[in-house]
Amino acid sequence: MLPCERCLTACKRVSNDIVGKSLIKFCNSCGATVTLRIPEGDSLERAVCDTCGTIQYQNPKIVVGCLPAHGDRILICKRAIEPRYGLWTLPAGFMENNETAGEGAAREALEEANAKVEIEDLYAVYSIPNISQVYMMFRAKLVDPGVSPGIESLEVKLVTLDQVPWNELAFAMVKKTIEFYIEDLKTGVFKPRFGDIRPR
Amino acid sequence: MLPCERCLTACKRVSNDIVGKSLIKFCNSCGATVTLRIPEGDSLERAVCDTCGTIQYQNPKIVVGCLPAHGDRILICKRAIEPRYGLWTLPAGFMENNETAGEGAAREALEEANAKVEIEDLYAVYSIPNISQVYMMFRAKLVDPGVSPGIESLEVKLVTLDQVPWNELAFAMVKKTIEFYIEDLKTGVFKPRFGDIRPR
Repeated sequence: MLPCERCLTACKRVSNDIVGKSLIKFCNSCGATVTLRIPEGDSLERAVCDTCGTIQYQNPKIVVGCLPAHGDRILICKRAIEPRYGLWTLPAGFMENNETAGEGAAREALEEANAKVEIEDLYAVYSIPNISQVYMMFRAKLVDPGVSPGIESLEVKLVTLDQVPWNELAFAMVKKTIEFYIEDLKTGVFKPRFGDIRPR
Repeated sequence: MLPCERCLTACKRVSNDIVGKSLIKFCNSCGATVTLRIPEGDSLERAVCDTCGTIQYQNPKIVVGCLPAHGDRILICKRAIEPRYGLWTLPAGFMENNETAGEGAAREALEEANAKVEIEDLYAVYSIPNISQVYMMFRAKLVDPGVSPGIESLEVKLVTLDQVPWNELAFAMVKKTIEFYIEDLKTGVFKPRFGDIRPR
């Protein structure tokens, strides 16, 4: 098991590379060995195939998610998978090829909580450079409060904002997104937030 | 040469996969062959190693760029590389691991135009699902108008907004970003834009 890109621990989502240190040993195109070197015209070291020359690029991944609101309650999910098994999250996960960020966020809500949502504004965009991820969190309207755990959730529930389990939240970005929402509810103006999260 | 993910033509940036159709034939981790199948607990087909089981994920890539302004002029670059060789663009390119989106946008301005910029707000975030890319375009302040072509540019210049070569712009997202900027200059309020670009 190789470490997951999202958490840098061994979780269900095993990846073929880890951030900042290539674990790419063979070429995806021809199966030959690769060498870490700076290709011509480039400025960064890449895993380059010794035989066919194919460059195995590694780039940041996008995590798409949403804050589904229904009246004065929001939807949270208790994780049934590592990392952060048993902790609470907003529905979110890796964006897939051939979808938009909003479609990905809606898909994650459906997968994790059987929740049908209407995606509203893009609300928080944060880079996390030490794990090479960019979070894109949307505000969303939960269409039907009849939610139930998907395969990646132990439990899902609607909570009022004074019921948020602050000490049992899975990820920094989940906490931030809910905090922004609480702040903006006071004025009724939801301002998009952009920034970075760096290790303490 | 395999097609580039950005343009789906054969350009300098050869990638080890193309969007929507895996060209992954071998495992990056052990070099064995892979089979396209849905891994347990997943819902999408992935290239899974026949020997060690490593899943070769393919996810959308982020293009980071900026609109560098200096007084009433903006910086544009004439491309010295495919795709869209000879057409004009704003400085932009693939985000790299271990950088923030803003750092990536500033790096691209430096690489393409030897331009030192101060990154301001995130201005346009657009998904392009048919090529599995998300553009993140920032507004930026060009610190010093003394710019010069980097290796990926034939020519760089500062133009007023009535000098923009609209019929010679390289990418839809470049056009959109400049249009948003012209629109917002009228009111002086720069509103972030979010959306999708789909094939006509």
